Amino acid sequence: MAEPLKIALAGLGTVGTGVVRLIETNADLIARRAGRPIRITAVSARDRSKDRGVDLSPYAWEDDPVAMAARGDVDVVVELVGGSDGPALALARGAFKHGKGLVTANKAMIAHHGLELAASAEQTSVPLKFEAAVAGGIPVIKGLSEGAAANAIDRVYGILNGTCNYILSTMEDTGADFGDVLAEAQRLGYAEADPTFDIEGIDAAHKLAILASIAFGARLRFDAVETMGISRVKAADIEQARALGYVIRLIGTAEIDRGEGVPRLLQRVRPHLVPFDHPLAHVDGATNAVVAEGNFMGRLLFQGAGAGDGPTASAVVADIIDIARGEKGAAFSMPAGDLEAMEPAPTGHRLGRSYIRFTVPDRPGVLADITAAMRDAGVSIESLIQKGDPDDDGEVILALVTHEVPESAVSEAMRILEGSHSLTAQPLVMQIIGD
Amino acid sequence: MAEPLKIALAGLGTVGTGVVRLIETNADLIARRAGRPIRITAVSARDRSKDRGVDLSPYAWEDDPVAMAARGDVDVVVELVGGSDGPALALARGAFKHGKGLVTANKAMIAHHGLELAASAEQTSVPLKFEAAVAGGIPVIKGLSEGAAANAIDRVYGILNGTCNYILSTMEDTGADFGDVLAEAQRLGYAEADPTFDIEGIDAAHKLAILASIAFGARLRFDAVETMGISRVKAADIEQARALGYVIRLIGTAEIDRGEGVPRLLQRVRPHLVPFDHPLAHVDGATNAVVAEGNFMGRLLFQGAGAGDGPTASAVVADIIDIARGEKGAAFSMPAGDLEAMEPAPTGHRLGRSYIRFTVPDRPGVLADITAAMRDAGVSIESLIQKGDPDDDGEVILALVTHEVPESAVSEAMRILEGSHSLTAQPLVMQIIGD
Repeated sequence: MAEPLKIALAGLGTVGTGVVRLIETNADLIARRAGRPIRITAVSARDRSKDRGVDLSPYAWEDDPVAMAARGDVDVVVELVGGSDGPALALARGAFKHGKGLVTANKAMIAHHGLELAASAEQTSVPLKFEAAVAGGIPVIKGLSEGAAANAIDRVYGILNGTCNYILSTMEDTGADFGDVLAEAQRLGYAEADPTFDIEGIDAAHKLAILASIAFGARLRFDAVETMGISRVKAADIEQARALGYVIRLIGTAEIDRGEGVPRLLQRVRPHLVPFDHPLAHVDGATNAVVAEGNFMGRLLFQGAGAGDGPTASAVVADIIDIARGEKGAAFSMPAGDLEAMEPAPTGHRLGRSYIRFTVPDRPGVLADITAAMRDAGVSIESLIQKGDPDDDGEVILALVTHEVPESAVSEAMRILEGSHSLTAQPLVMQIIGD
Repeated sequence: MAEPLKIALAGLGTVGTGVVRLIETNADLIARRAGRPIRITAVSARDRSKDRGVDLSPYAWEDDPVAMAARGDVDVVVELVGGSDGPALALARGAFKHGKGLVTANKAMIAHHGLELAASAEQTSVPLKFEAAVAGGIPVIKGLSEGAAANAIDRVYGILNGTCNYILSTMEDTGADFGDVLAEAQRLGYAEADPTFDIEGIDAAHKLAILASIAFGARLRFDAVETMGISRVKAADIEQARALGYVIRLIGTAEIDRGEGVPRLLQRVRPHLVPFDHPLAHVDGATNAVVAEGNFMGRLLFQGAGAGDGPTASAVVADIIDIARGEKGAAFSMPAGDLEAMEPAPTGHRLGRSYIRFTVPDRPGVLADITAAMRDAGVSIESLIQKGDPDDDGEVILALVTHEVPESAVSEAMRILEGSHSLTAQPLVMQIIGD
């Protein structure tokens, strides 16, 4: 059998120790599939003395992760430190400087610096791979960049954040409100102590920007992802949505808009209403799922565990096996220099149906004000539910679903209602996923 | 840009012309992704004069497909002739003899001769790829052999035949019986004039044997797939299943049985009852879906168009792009000689719940006979539905669901009832998919 592929592992949190366990547990199988053994030669983490439940004594220890890039007994650096900049980025740059390949699970770093890193990797003719950065154990980067490579893809969307999906599907199952479910998720370790990145959609936006770049052959534009999280979704919204035939999911959507000749890039992360008969409506708990639509393959769905040490380690080691096999594909499915620069697409002209939830005082005339605003903005209403009883604050929930109208019309209706005494809080607008 | 990859195309049916259309339509995109253009140099089919809706004049014509393997202007032969032997096999062998790579959509040929062909391809150091042979446009072979490569996979199962899934889901929607839906499917072109391969599960068995070999690193054993089709499923079964919380789907299942130390291979294609909350229960029409369970990644689902010219062409061209990129993975994820020979697993000890449908005469005592047989075989009954009214032949449908029991106990109950006057037809046993 050929020479082992020698790897250095930076970061020994749950994913890092998962990678160690995986490489040890499945060593024989991996060697058969990769055509050569994968051998860990060096590891690095902040605290050497911490018990991580795996025996690290066979591996050289480096206090400074960046030092691993310079070691002669390392072919590929595996970066599991995290963070868009700092030591992770220094290590990535160091790897390419020393002619080593890089495997990373770091979505923030790739979303912010992916193009620079891909260009460096190409210059040095070493691989850069980040399957684990998007959708955990699901091989969706491989699925898009290789499996769907023959297709022009015009749309990719999906459930990209397991924490949000866990919270939304638990709210659905229990009827509990957002804050209570979040607190419980934090207690159970399903949500971080500071959950901002997850619940405000930033984590999903990182992943979406990476997927969009690969799917469309577009330069990565994380800065252009329009992001709205789930913290404003109430139990009442989930109840109304269910009554109308929908569930609520945080969906990242990327599309190419070819409206005016020049392709433009639409990227947004938002809670959406998903009809019961759509495959994404059945994605519960921490599961992730991605749909891609190609001009020959039609609609493709990938679904699986979006996080966790096992699934993430599975994706990291799949990348390492690809490198061991000599696979040489470009990080973003084509050379970084060939990716097309695309401006963000305007969204006002987009047609769609929306769900709008108003919190209103319990008095006559409110409905007339709201419907007048909708009429004046040219938004026609398909259905409307007004919850019977006011809550403790004397407020009533009023939810409506629009017919298919331009998004700009809904924005105009919201503008008309701004500051109206008929509203006690800012309305929540969520789009409804179509076919 | 590098030299084009030159391909010869044998077989110009719907998939073959789909490949021509795809390569022409997406030429620029493919060249960017592959790092070089893909160029068709020669084509071959039975009838040169037939109008196929694509212009074939730029390509050299060969009457004999095998002659293409010898052409100097061909790097890769694309075999879309079909059939397990005959010209397809001659062409595949010819390609390797002349040092050309082979891409094929031919599940029958791979199921019967895949190991021989993989060994030949390895000897000559040329690629053999067959993504399109399984599940049409879904990159499931890539997903298993590369995306899931880090995992020991113990189970892979799914909906592998679009025709059967179309028939079963249409029966579900319309309440029509098997024969009527099949006739309509034939009229619409969704089922072949001779539908045996599809409806008797042979097509699904070809695909399952290929998936099992890749997933488990096992030598391909198509001969050992236990196959039962859907022609005995009645509208009444679908109705009873629905009342019990299930849909009926033709499922191919492959598992490793490690029961007695030596791993053994279970492969079977059968109609199953699938609970409403299982992802496969929402796979309707001609869609295919495959689930794989790995020891680190957990459960992964791939879903998409299982047939049709566009999706199949997408898979064929994805293979060609891989070759253009210089990807060198082994056909079955590891060298053919490294695949483990596994005997078929016995199934009698397997625990599970079953649905059993009896057709019985409309007279007293029948239920007592059946329940006595179940008791004597040690099969305990979870629920039982007896349809009220006898049909035109004076027969009544009686359906029951067992508790979890060994499969051998159900077989024993069926043996006891053999020839019983309490049955007017052979019972239909279908397993219920668990977690």
